[in-house]
Amino acid sequence: MPVVKIEVTREGVTKEQKQALIKGVTDLISDVLNKNPQLTHVLIKEYDLDDWGFAGEQVSELRAKGITADKK
Amino acid sequence: MPVVKIEVTREGVTKEQKQALIKGVTDLISDVLNKNPQLTHVLIKEYDLDDWGFAGEQVSELRAKGITADKK
Amino acid sequence: MPVVKIEVTREGVTKEQKQALIKGVTDLISDVLNKNPQLTHVLIKEYDLDDWGFAGEQVSELRAKGITADKK
Amino acid sequence: MPVVKIEVTREGVTKEQKQALIKGVTDLISDVLNKNPQLTHVLIKEYDLDDWGFAGEQVSELRAKGITADKK
Amino acid sequence: MPVVKIEVTREGVTKEQKQALIKGVTDLISDVLNKNPQLTHVLIKEYDLDDWGFAGEQVSELRAKGITADKK
Amino acid sequence: MPVVKIEVTREGVTKEQKQALIKGVTDLISDVLNKNPQLTHVLIKEYDLDDWGFAGEQVSELRAKGITADKK
Repeated sequence: MPVVKIEVTREGVTKEQKQALIKGVTDLISDVLNKNPQLTHVLIKEYDLDDWGFAGEQVSELRAKGITADKK
Repeated sequence: MPVVKIEVTREGVTKEQKQALIKGVTDLISDVLNKNPQLTHVLIKEYDLDDWGFAGEQVSELRAKGITADKK
Repeated sequence: MPVVKIEVTREGVTKEQKQALIKGVTDLISDVLNKNPQLTHVLIKEYDLDDWGFAGEQVSELRAKGITADKK
Repeated sequence: MPVVKIEVTREGVTKEQKQALIKGVTDLISDVLNKNPQLTHVLIKEYDLDDWGFAGEQVSELRAKGITADKK
Repeated sequence: MPVVKIEVTREGVTKEQKQALIKGVTDLISDVLNKNPQLTHVLIKEYDLDDWGFAGEQVSELRAKGITADKK
Repeated sequence: MPVVKIEVTREGVTKEQKQALIKGVTDLISDVLNKNPQLTHVLIKEYDLDDWGFAGEQVSELRAKGITADKK
């Protein structure tokens, strides 16, 4: 009976990416914990960049300075 | 000192339905736990259908296939 | 597809009270939103009294002063 | 490794106020717990007034009656 | 900047299974959203079986009746 | 009407530190948002080190390698 919540900044996540996250997390939980997928709910919550702070600064300000969360 | 969060898919929940949920949950907690309602907060969070996954699929896709969450 | 989380202070909530909360919330959501109960999950999280603050004070301190959350 | 979520009613919180909350919480955690700010995330979630209930009533209704959450 | 919370019933999840969930979710988010893993936090919260309700019943009661969440 | 949740790893946070967090966050919200402290709840949730993952690894493993979250 798992519920998974994914919280991310709102930076153009597409419907297809969301579906990939939902499918991937559900499969992972099914594989690792042997859970029936019919009991797994995945919720995605996006935050505006003014509403997420990292190291004491709004992400909107970090992005304005060219600081991203991208993988190198 | 209870805080209750109700998370549902965004599918036309009306202001009156939200009020019924808030009143119902607050009364329930007052009845069962004998809590002063002045200390009970109820938060409702709706999710777009692309942002909720069930059994590995987006609810938007389930609805497109005619699969609902309605009581039979 | 609702998920409900009930957060309360840990002050002797019994198994029977928890079941009453779970049943009550599930019925409420079924009545108000017409949702299939097979898709409703209710999670109860209790907090130690040092871990909940109200009006700037730990509930453990409030209780030591005789201040309760009981209904009058 | 702290994650802090601040949930408030949506009543005109400005970008500057959000930044003050993010900075203030991050500094507080750094001071009290000696945590590296690079590991602290602060998330702000605003709720529409119909979606927050207090004492069994929607905040939208409380505000219509002139009841505010302001400090006296 | 993702934060992921996995909520499950407390039914013997091992340290190794938790690590597999953490690694799997972090890799998934890195792959799908191209996020730097140094910014991804995964939190696992287990619930006692009296504290999780499904379809209006405590999971402790469902398990006593032989109803599991296992994959068929 | 704010609710604040602070989630941290369980690494010896004392009752006094928790009180400092509760008081500090409540004062901050009172100062920045002009909210009546009687409407502010602060919840602290500690996670065992196996239950928090950062950069794809359990914090218990990071700590075993000497990697801390302390301020330099």
